[in-house]
Amino acid sequence: MTNVRIILVAPKFEGNIGAIARSMANFDISELYLIHPCDIGDDAYRRAKHGADILENAKIVESIDEALEGCFMVVGTSGVATKGDKNYIRIPISAHEFAERVRDYDEKIAILFGREDIGLLQDELARCDLLVHIPSSDMYPILNLSHAATIVMYELFGKVLDSPEPADHEEKERMFRFFDELLDNIDYPPQRKEYTSAMFRRMMGRAVPSKYEYNTIMGVIGDASRLITGKLSYPSQKKE
Amino acid sequence: MTNVRIILVAPKFEGNIGAIARSMANFDISELYLIHPCDIGDDAYRRAKHGADILENAKIVESIDEALEGCFMVVGTSGVATKGDKNYIRIPISAHEFAERVRDYDEKIAILFGREDIGLLQDELARCDLLVHIPSSDMYPILNLSHAATIVMYELFGKVLDSPEPADHEEKERMFRFFDELLDNIDYPPQRKEYTSAMFRRMMGRAVPSKYEYNTIMGVIGDASRLITGKLSYPSQKKE
Repeated sequence: MTNVRIILVAPKFEGNIGAIARSMANFDISELYLIHPCDIGDDAYRRAKHGADILENAKIVESIDEALEGCFMVVGTSGVATKGDKNYIRIPISAHEFAERVRDYDEKIAILFGREDIGLLQDELARCDLLVHIPSSDMYPILNLSHAATIVMYELFGKVLDSPEPADHEEKERMFRFFDELLDNIDYPPQRKEYTSAMFRRMMGRAVPSKYEYNTIMGVIGDASRLITGKLSYPSQKKE
Repeated sequence: MTNVRIILVAPKFEGNIGAIARSMANFDISELYLIHPCDIGDDAYRRAKHGADILENAKIVESIDEALEGCFMVVGTSGVATKGDKNYIRIPISAHEFAERVRDYDEKIAILFGREDIGLLQDELARCDLLVHIPSSDMYPILNLSHAATIVMYELFGKVLDSPEPADHEEKERMFRFFDELLDNIDYPPQRKEYTSAMFRRMMGRAVPSKYEYNTIMGVIGDASRLITGKLSYPSQKKE
């Protein structure tokens, strides 16, 4: 897990601070620093839920220097992506790309989130080694503070789900053969057979079924074929 | 853009509804359906910001059937990822994978988000063609409703940022040559030269600088070398 400190610069709404503490718990991040935050009361704790201890332990500091102490890389976030090449201070990378690049980074990374209304100031941005942006609508690119923080932490967490064991090649081919046999058995129009067979293969490919799912479908198709051709009389023989 | 309808099933907090309307505006999604929602008042509109018209136009319906009308694919979201292979109704794919798979899908997709506390019920899950999960902490996997919806919409939006024009191969090689010359000019220890040269190349590689940035760095390195070797007396000749 990347070693991250979340720093909120002068947040104005305690609800956002609480919501971010919750998201930190959701994505296994625990270090929260607040520079000149608003008062933190019931609303923040109500929204923090199981992130309440993160909120409780948040370090309230007076300056960006204090907040950055012990961090090796400083990352800013910006709601505005500059297209110009020369305003280098404003050229961002995407949240996804950022997460990919720092995946194996050992040093502590500070991620700065600015005020709800005006974000990070020019001199704060100048402290950043990297600027991160969340791609969003041209019409309305400004995300809620806790949403923006959540997306960045989600990208850093970046785990893929454990998939159930996928079917192996042989199982797949047997299922496709069963499907082709079924087409024969239902007197499918020969001129459409090849196309439908390919379509089924493509569709199952997109579905990426598990071993269990392949075998289940194969069973259904096989039984249907056997019933049609009279080799199995449902349901009596199936019970054997 | 994927054609999406966001459906909230019995949301309990108007703040979440408003926050989701805002995120929808952030990610260019406009169709919002609410099944048996709580009352929607000032707090929802305050949080919707520029998504207020989405909230205004949200369709309030009485049943999941009404909500799904006109949708071809029905997608559920779940805070719990089942590992078992046979409880097929609960096997999810990740939000990222979901977005990748439906990127070129033309038909309308309904995305169902469940109640804040207990999510989607078994019979609602049974209506879904696909279940989407957001990878999160084993300790505390339950995201705030608007955070979960925001992440799914963020993944669907999925744009990459326009990067400034990257440097071409020739420019890069010239810069690295300038750097090597600088090492010579500062009498860098010969035994470390190769390593430091490679390190610089790797570091610049990770930084993926733009054409402008390469040229700027090249200028600095070149000037330094020339100053050291006396071929340029700074700053007078530079002004020419």
